[in-house]
Amino acid sequence: MDIAVVNSLSYEQFVEVFGNAVEKCPLVAAAVWSSRPFTSIADIDDAFGHFIDSLPDSGKEGVLRCHPDLAGRDLQSGTLTADSLAEQSQAGLTQLGVAEAERIAVLNSQYKLRFGFPFVICARMNDKTSILQQLSQRLASDHAHELTHAIGEVKRICSLRLQALVCPTHLGPAQPNHVPPRL
Amino acid sequence: MDIAVVNSLSYEQFVEVFGNAVEKCPLVAAAVWSSRPFTSIADIDDAFGHFIDSLPDSGKEGVLRCHPDLAGRDLQSGTLTADSLAEQSQAGLTQLGVAEAERIAVLNSQYKLRFGFPFVICARMNDKTSILQQLSQRLASDHAHELTHAIGEVKRICSLRLQALVCPTHLGPAQPNHVPPRL
Repeated sequence: MDIAVVNSLSYEQFVEVFGNAVEKCPLVAAAVWSSRPFTSIADIDDAFGHFIDSLPDSGKEGVLRCHPDLAGRDLQSGTLTADSLAEQSQAGLTQLGVAEAERIAVLNSQYKLRFGFPFVICARMNDKTSILQQLSQRLASDHAHELTHAIGEVKRICSLRLQALVCPTHLGPAQPNHVPPRL
Repeated sequence: MDIAVVNSLSYEQFVEVFGNAVEKCPLVAAAVWSSRPFTSIADIDDAFGHFIDSLPDSGKEGVLRCHPDLAGRDLQSGTLTADSLAEQSQAGLTQLGVAEAERIAVLNSQYKLRFGFPFVICARMNDKTSILQQLSQRLASDHAHELTHAIGEVKRICSLRLQALVCPTHLGPAQPNHVPPRL
């Protein structure tokens, strides 16, 4: 999608296309539309990052709380967003053994109890082994560092989703949630 | 729902119950969970209001852009949230004559073109006559005043939705989007 096309989108169209760049937070894309015109994909990506950074800590925690547990209830019940299913599948989280599934469930619960938000990691940049390893490690963080780290992961996920939506050929077959609107 | 019950909700349960208190912005409820424990419904309501106020202008515009047009495409296609359908129905917007429907469609378009977000008004506190009147009047506002006014309407809608969720008997039959979680 050419940047001129992105800049020509109405806010309804922009939210339809980019509404899940940050998982289940269409408010973020809807806010980013205010930053048009964009000069490049990187510029759009920056606008998403700047908006997330502008949120108070409670808002950053809110962004994290809109994410599903990795290999959690939404995966089991088939209610993941298409984006998240594709990402968790690529990382091998849809094909866990019983022991691995139990281990990640226990760690997810401990993590949520400790921090009050779910463990978020850019699954496309990890596999199930490194995810389990980082989940264990990050459980030992303090709250402020972990919030910063987790928001960094949200931005990584967002960057790859934007890239897949605007330049799908760069990442192989795209897994968009939304069909681009007719223009 | 007793305030002690609200305070006992996990963030997943809280977002399930209150996620649409601000239309299609579960991020707001997810952020407000950080403000527990709450002392009263008014305290929850204040937390939603304070969070919205904490957003930069682009975020406030983003909140507005997550709202549907009144008597617009989502109503016609049956894709409104249950909350919004109940509110628009109560205001008489589901039973407009052809001329009224055309008039509101034209004014909605002019409004969105002028401000970059849709016209938002607390439909439960208005009827179709006063809605059309205020839509015409607010079209003449400047951007800053209109953003403030529209966010005030978002808060009114939010307050009534919270009241209906926590104390449904105060408002007659409740129209919740979500079934309260099993506790």
